[in-house]
Amino acid sequence: MTRLNDNFLKLRAGYLFPEIARRVEAFSVAHPQLAPRIVRAGIGDVTEPLPAVAISALHRAVDDLGRRETFHGYGPPTGLLSVRQAIAEGDFRSRGIAVDDDEIFLSDGSKPDCSAVLEILGCGNTVAVTDPVYPVYVDTNVMAGNTGAARAEGGYEGIVAIPTSAATAFAAEPPEQRVDVVYLCSPNNPTGTVLSRAALERWVEWARRHESIILFDAAYEAFIRDGSLPRSIFEIAGARECAMEFRSFSKNGGFTGLRCGYTVLPKSLQARAADGSRHALHALWTRRWSTCSNGVSYPVQRAAESLYTAPGRAQTRQLIDFYLGNAALLLAACEGLGMRAFGGVNAPYVWVECPAGVSSWQAFDALLTQGQLVVTPGAGFGRCGEGYFRISAFNSRANAEEAGRRLAVLTAATAATR
Amino acid sequence: MTRLNDNFLKLRAGYLFPEIARRVEAFSVAHPQLAPRIVRAGIGDVTEPLPAVAISALHRAVDDLGRRETFHGYGPPTGLLSVRQAIAEGDFRSRGIAVDDDEIFLSDGSKPDCSAVLEILGCGNTVAVTDPVYPVYVDTNVMAGNTGAARAEGGYEGIVAIPTSAATAFAAEPPEQRVDVVYLCSPNNPTGTVLSRAALERWVEWARRHESIILFDAAYEAFIRDGSLPRSIFEIAGARECAMEFRSFSKNGGFTGLRCGYTVLPKSLQARAADGSRHALHALWTRRWSTCSNGVSYPVQRAAESLYTAPGRAQTRQLIDFYLGNAALLLAACEGLGMRAFGGVNAPYVWVECPAGVSSWQAFDALLTQGQLVVTPGAGFGRCGEGYFRISAFNSRANAEEAGRRLAVLTAATAATR
Repeated sequence: MTRLNDNFLKLRAGYLFPEIARRVEAFSVAHPQLAPRIVRAGIGDVTEPLPAVAISALHRAVDDLGRRETFHGYGPPTGLLSVRQAIAEGDFRSRGIAVDDDEIFLSDGSKPDCSAVLEILGCGNTVAVTDPVYPVYVDTNVMAGNTGAARAEGGYEGIVAIPTSAATAFAAEPPEQRVDVVYLCSPNNPTGTVLSRAALERWVEWARRHESIILFDAAYEAFIRDGSLPRSIFEIAGARECAMEFRSFSKNGGFTGLRCGYTVLPKSLQARAADGSRHALHALWTRRWSTCSNGVSYPVQRAAESLYTAPGRAQTRQLIDFYLGNAALLLAACEGLGMRAFGGVNAPYVWVECPAGVSSWQAFDALLTQGQLVVTPGAGFGRCGEGYFRISAFNSRANAEEAGRRLAVLTAATAATR
Repeated sequence: MTRLNDNFLKLRAGYLFPEIARRVEAFSVAHPQLAPRIVRAGIGDVTEPLPAVAISALHRAVDDLGRRETFHGYGPPTGLLSVRQAIAEGDFRSRGIAVDDDEIFLSDGSKPDCSAVLEILGCGNTVAVTDPVYPVYVDTNVMAGNTGAARAEGGYEGIVAIPTSAATAFAAEPPEQRVDVVYLCSPNNPTGTVLSRAALERWVEWARRHESIILFDAAYEAFIRDGSLPRSIFEIAGARECAMEFRSFSKNGGFTGLRCGYTVLPKSLQARAADGSRHALHALWTRRWSTCSNGVSYPVQRAAESLYTAPGRAQTRQLIDFYLGNAALLLAACEGLGMRAFGGVNAPYVWVECPAGVSSWQAFDALLTQGQLVVTPGAGFGRCGEGYFRISAFNSRANAEEAGRRLAVLTAATAATR
């Protein structure tokens, strides 16, 4: 009989967000009168309409597809040249960062990219993640066979978890040991922590010394407003030899439903074959895209391109300003309630400490059942996430304000049990 | 140093279509005065505008994204329920084929699906392909580690090639030996052969006997106009226990630039774990989509859905009629020139025998340099493709007619050398 990929059987039941959806659904069914009151601040999903430039670009591109003279069929697997140019120029070269057009690879989002990159890396590399962590990094490595079995206490055998804690505001430092691949996310999902230039320099120095590769997830870079903080790992000297970067239009352009992102893979990034020879990963990534994809939807690419025009920049900035306003408001609400919170500045996530003795799933359940507020329990992001929960600033202003108020059920519940 | 996926290094240089593009580009640069004359009938890419229903659906969906009240962010990873319903009902249940809504998985195309399916299958399964074959099946298996090294005479160690030939009009029969996974494509790319109901019954019986899995690529099913020919493998009793099907909107809806397809994975399809236990692949495929994807672009899903309305059906039928008209015309041209040809009926590809003693790349070069006609050389599809070339009916009527005329350079050249 045909063999299945046994690694899937190692996965713990339920990816985090489906489990949250299940609990919310169960609550709604049990309490239909409260269901309409639910405020969702769990998944980091945008709520505001697409920027006007993107809407216009989409309509124009759709019209292109409706006329024989302007019709577009298969595009280049790695993206339209003009779009790659707009990105390389707009996000990098105009900011003094050397990135070639053909080092940009368009995709239908960062989540697929995080998974696909494992196709070009060898099975058996030692992989490190910071803890707490976006679960996709871990689960895709489980599926790809880079881990052992699930551990009773959380995590998987063979994956190196780099613990972070409130003591360092959840900023990760390079581990003592050598690992082959490390995922860094800054601004961080879920903690909202942004790595400083000095911290990123230590990471790059460490990766070059160990000949490791940093997979740098910059999906939230647009939220960085502090000019001293790096928005790309390629702002750090030497990163072109040790890093690959993941970018998304999901948050800056509101493209979560439209689907577009990109990776930056410098031609100078190498890895080793079994015989010890060194090869540019760029060639493998290009081949991967040629063989496994026909590129991103044409109208979606045109929409992404439109964000790089002057009005596009202004409109995305406005969108980000709006969500940053929500984040500030949530952070203030936490402070007002005497709750300790991280992130929320230069980042769309607020990372809140649970009241003493309350676990993150208990906090989740209390907020859902008593406050009809959906957050993301920190334990879903790893062992170091226990005792915290994430609130997303991706919401309407009214919902963000309401979420801020409803957090009070947690402090009230704690006070009541005293 | 980080290890790369060594399997990529086994791949022969250049996927077929980039190699064709390279030669066409080189010719255009060398002969700029002839470049505008080039007629492309190589890649199977549509040329006609999208159906009007799809254009309207796209515009409406874009407007949805422009307003807060109708905005859509992340969708379900396997597709909007209403779209899955429209597909299951429209393509299957209305034709008497039992397929549940949740057995439909939307994707951004068949090419990505063909690659992604290997993620849920175990590494080391014995894989068979028919020869000639769509190169993506082979190359993705090389990348996934299911093959050995490239063979000097073509193909890769460890992949079973099931030869087909003119003697059976390129219809494949089940092999003697047991294999774990077999790819079948009907209507076939590149030969245009459609498997009969009796042939598919033999395949299903064979797969059930060996507990093998058939990956059935039905991307071109819309071209089948002969009611006696099966358009889905699930028309065959027992297929739900041994098959998975790949479908695409690229050809019936002209979505090559828009990107949408789907897989059908019955909940009754099982595979074996290392410990011998049997598991439904449906659960693994669902998990794969939840973890690695955020679904298909919202406007694109709405466009796919629109094809199932009454006007949508009429408009796609008209599109297919148009391309079938091109195919008939190309087939007639071959016959007029005394060239032996296959396919072109119930299929968008015409598979043409090269003149005696002319290899498929020689025919390609002759047609390009003397006739400025781009076809696809059969050798690019496998050893049994040598001595043939594929002409695509995806073209404007004028180009299809012109392609038919220009084929004459081959017979003229052959006559001249006699």
